[in-house]
Amino acid sequence: MDDTVRQHKYVLTEDQMPTTWYNIMADLPSPPPPPLHPGRMDPVGPDDLAPLFPMDLIMQEVSAERYIDIPGGVLDVYRQWRPSPLFRAHNLERALGTPARIYYKYEGVSPAGSHKPNTSVPQAYYNKKEGTKKLTTETGAGQWGTALSYACALFGLECEVWQVGASYDAKPYRRLMIETFGAKVHRSPSEVTASGRAFLADPKNYSGSLGIAISEAVEVAATDPDTRYALGSVLNHVLLHQTIIGQEALLQLAMAGDTPTLIVGCTGGGSNFAGLSFPFIREKLAGKMSPRILAAEPASCPSLTRGVYAYDFGDTAGMTPLMKMHTLGHDFIPDPIHAGGLRYHGMAPLISHLYETGMMDAESVPQTECFAAAVQFARTEGIVPAPEPTHAIALAIREALKAKETGEETVILTALCGHGHFDLAAYDQYLRGEMVDENFTEERLQAALATLPQVANA
Amino acid sequence: MDDTVRQHKYVLTEDQMPTTWYNIMADLPSPPPPPLHPGRMDPVGPDDLAPLFPMDLIMQEVSAERYIDIPGGVLDVYRQWRPSPLFRAHNLERALGTPARIYYKYEGVSPAGSHKPNTSVPQAYYNKKEGTKKLTTETGAGQWGTALSYACALFGLECEVWQVGASYDAKPYRRLMIETFGAKVHRSPSEVTASGRAFLADPKNYSGSLGIAISEAVEVAATDPDTRYALGSVLNHVLLHQTIIGQEALLQLAMAGDTPTLIVGCTGGGSNFAGLSFPFIREKLAGKMSPRILAAEPASCPSLTRGVYAYDFGDTAGMTPLMKMHTLGHDFIPDPIHAGGLRYHGMAPLISHLYETGMMDAESVPQTECFAAAVQFARTEGIVPAPEPTHAIALAIREALKAKETGEETVILTALCGHGHFDLAAYDQYLRGEMVDENFTEERLQAALATLPQVANA
Repeated sequence: MDDTVRQHKYVLTEDQMPTTWYNIMADLPSPPPPPLHPGRMDPVGPDDLAPLFPMDLIMQEVSAERYIDIPGGVLDVYRQWRPSPLFRAHNLERALGTPARIYYKYEGVSPAGSHKPNTSVPQAYYNKKEGTKKLTTETGAGQWGTALSYACALFGLECEVWQVGASYDAKPYRRLMIETFGAKVHRSPSEVTASGRAFLADPKNYSGSLGIAISEAVEVAATDPDTRYALGSVLNHVLLHQTIIGQEALLQLAMAGDTPTLIVGCTGGGSNFAGLSFPFIREKLAGKMSPRILAAEPASCPSLTRGVYAYDFGDTAGMTPLMKMHTLGHDFIPDPIHAGGLRYHGMAPLISHLYETGMMDAESVPQTECFAAAVQFARTEGIVPAPEPTHAIALAIREALKAKETGEETVILTALCGHGHFDLAAYDQYLRGEMVDENFTEERLQAALATLPQVANA
Repeated sequence: MDDTVRQHKYVLTEDQMPTTWYNIMADLPSPPPPPLHPGRMDPVGPDDLAPLFPMDLIMQEVSAERYIDIPGGVLDVYRQWRPSPLFRAHNLERALGTPARIYYKYEGVSPAGSHKPNTSVPQAYYNKKEGTKKLTTETGAGQWGTALSYACALFGLECEVWQVGASYDAKPYRRLMIETFGAKVHRSPSEVTASGRAFLADPKNYSGSLGIAISEAVEVAATDPDTRYALGSVLNHVLLHQTIIGQEALLQLAMAGDTPTLIVGCTGGGSNFAGLSFPFIREKLAGKMSPRILAAEPASCPSLTRGVYAYDFGDTAGMTPLMKMHTLGHDFIPDPIHAGGLRYHGMAPLISHLYETGMMDAESVPQTECFAAAVQFARTEGIVPAPEPTHAIALAIREALKAKETGEETVILTALCGHGHFDLAAYDQYLRGEMVDENFTEERLQAALATLPQVANA
């Protein structure tokens, strides 16, 4: 048969699995601006964060060490699904007729189905170590809530999740999976918090947002000494934990004998993108390779390409520290696209800093282009992607088609950060021809930006 | 921390992956009775099967060779997810307080989420090789339809699936996944076949059954020379392809330095059970180990423990060859339990023969016990099982609790043949306390057995 299928998987043994996380802070030419206390407007210290996070995570948040050891108790759990595979997308390349070589690092092999357990496991581990009884969190599409409830089940912690209303309604199976792991789930905005009740007063908030759900989860954690809060993206320590992805991918691309010329990942809060790209940025800074680093963001929520670089709240109610980041404004409510995990008004401060200092690029993609790419990917590579990484797949395909025109042997590395088993209603909508592209208007952006905290940005 | 989580995974390298399937026919003390032509009532020959299957598969169906080489084009695809991991269930053992050691071979890592691609890939491969343009099939819970549509997408074949009505209604995401891979799905019984229209005339058939769906798929394949049929279980060649599971598990248990005293797998048509156990039965026959071999079947559809050993049709309309098997009668319609993949009236002839000759045992389990076991498994091991393997998990837990009483160091090996991502509505029903056990009455059984083909069993 001419058309024999080739699937090339690059696998590390457990012994080859990295035992440290990589901290990009150690290698940045200039440090990012510090987070500010929302009341005092001066840099937050460890004590300010102690009600929300265990001290080990706070220390990681501000660490300048290049490598941080992964505890044995975390490695034990990582080994349930790690090292994760790197695939060469031979079939997709053939379908595109491109000379480009496309590699994807697949994180959907985790029990939660995404990259999120890379950080939920250490967060649960450090909290358990410090005596925390319960963790609260937000979740968008439900990937993060699934990952945290999974980790809490393994470490014997209670877990309470505020799921963004639009996703709660559209993805019931995600909620059911979180409940199967033993956690409690609320539709956000909810009646169980003061901030939730306040948001519910305005009908425009009914579909919810990550910022609103964060406000609710933080509120509950801040008022109970046995309860702490866990965030699934944005913060330095979260991005740190995800670098296991890129650390492994570096070794696997070396096995393949290839060097990337383009690294593309999707960005919501930025943890998957950071996890894949930071170790490669280290190599680039060291002069060992020179890949273009590209973020793929949704057209509905383009914080890098359309937002401003300013101090803003991480949540919508204004309870978190102020972070200098690319933001659409903390009360910006994006259209309820299927990639619920990317519906965040801001961007991780570390990624915002890299973008601002010209170390990376970003492009936005409308969701019908994403799903066209996803269906082509599923039918060639055999894996149905979550809506979030379809943004990166769509840009990878754009670049592979450019390479077809120029004849360049582009080497693309992307992150397939999760499977789409809970997102099939979105595929159904696309296949029936009923999916429309999202709206994003300058008017809505300016209205949201008008609410940026003035003092911090003076 | 005292309660550090330990996850022990036993992994083979790609080089260690077996390159042959094991054919238990070569080692049986006596051969099973042959299938009979439904009209002539004499043994079927290759020519009788040629309209439905490519010759390579027909030859495997009747082969007496002990080992059959896996083609390179199949190994290439297997490597997308194989070798699959073997896990030691440390956390579950601790929760049960048992001295038993429990191992599970996890097949949910395949892109289709179950063990089914182990046979859908070679079936698509051999059909492509012989010029087939389209494959038709039935599917119960949807696992097999997903697996075949995945394999057809990779090999460029059309695919048309008849999904059992009860599952079609209860598991819409399975249908959507099959459609995402590019296949066409019908609710069975359907209006598009003569047999489907005949079944629809009687309202008792509305929820469908695997037997009915097989009739529809076979009818379409038999009437188009470019179309062939693919079966997801029961037949010798299907069981053969699944032996890659047990072949790997043997190597992995040796890595763990353990020898099983009990092997337990769920049985619907029997392919998962056979895949896990046949290589161990070979070792047992060779005097190298002496595990008890135990089939776990649903209380709604107990073909081994309550059925008769007789010649019966594989489908409900009576279009297939007659097979000597444990059967509840080809028009028995089991209660619509959540484990749709186990709702089959018969049992693979090879397994029926092993059971009849005293080489294995069987027990049935009601579905509430299965889901109690499943939730405990999910919250300790971190993986949400499909409803089918929860039957085997339930029996593994029964045996582990017996070991707790006796103090015996039972070594249990079971097959976690798929994840439950598409079955969360069933978990929801269980967690809300709304799940009830299925019905199985002697009256319904006798009514169905009255329709067994008389001539064949004279």
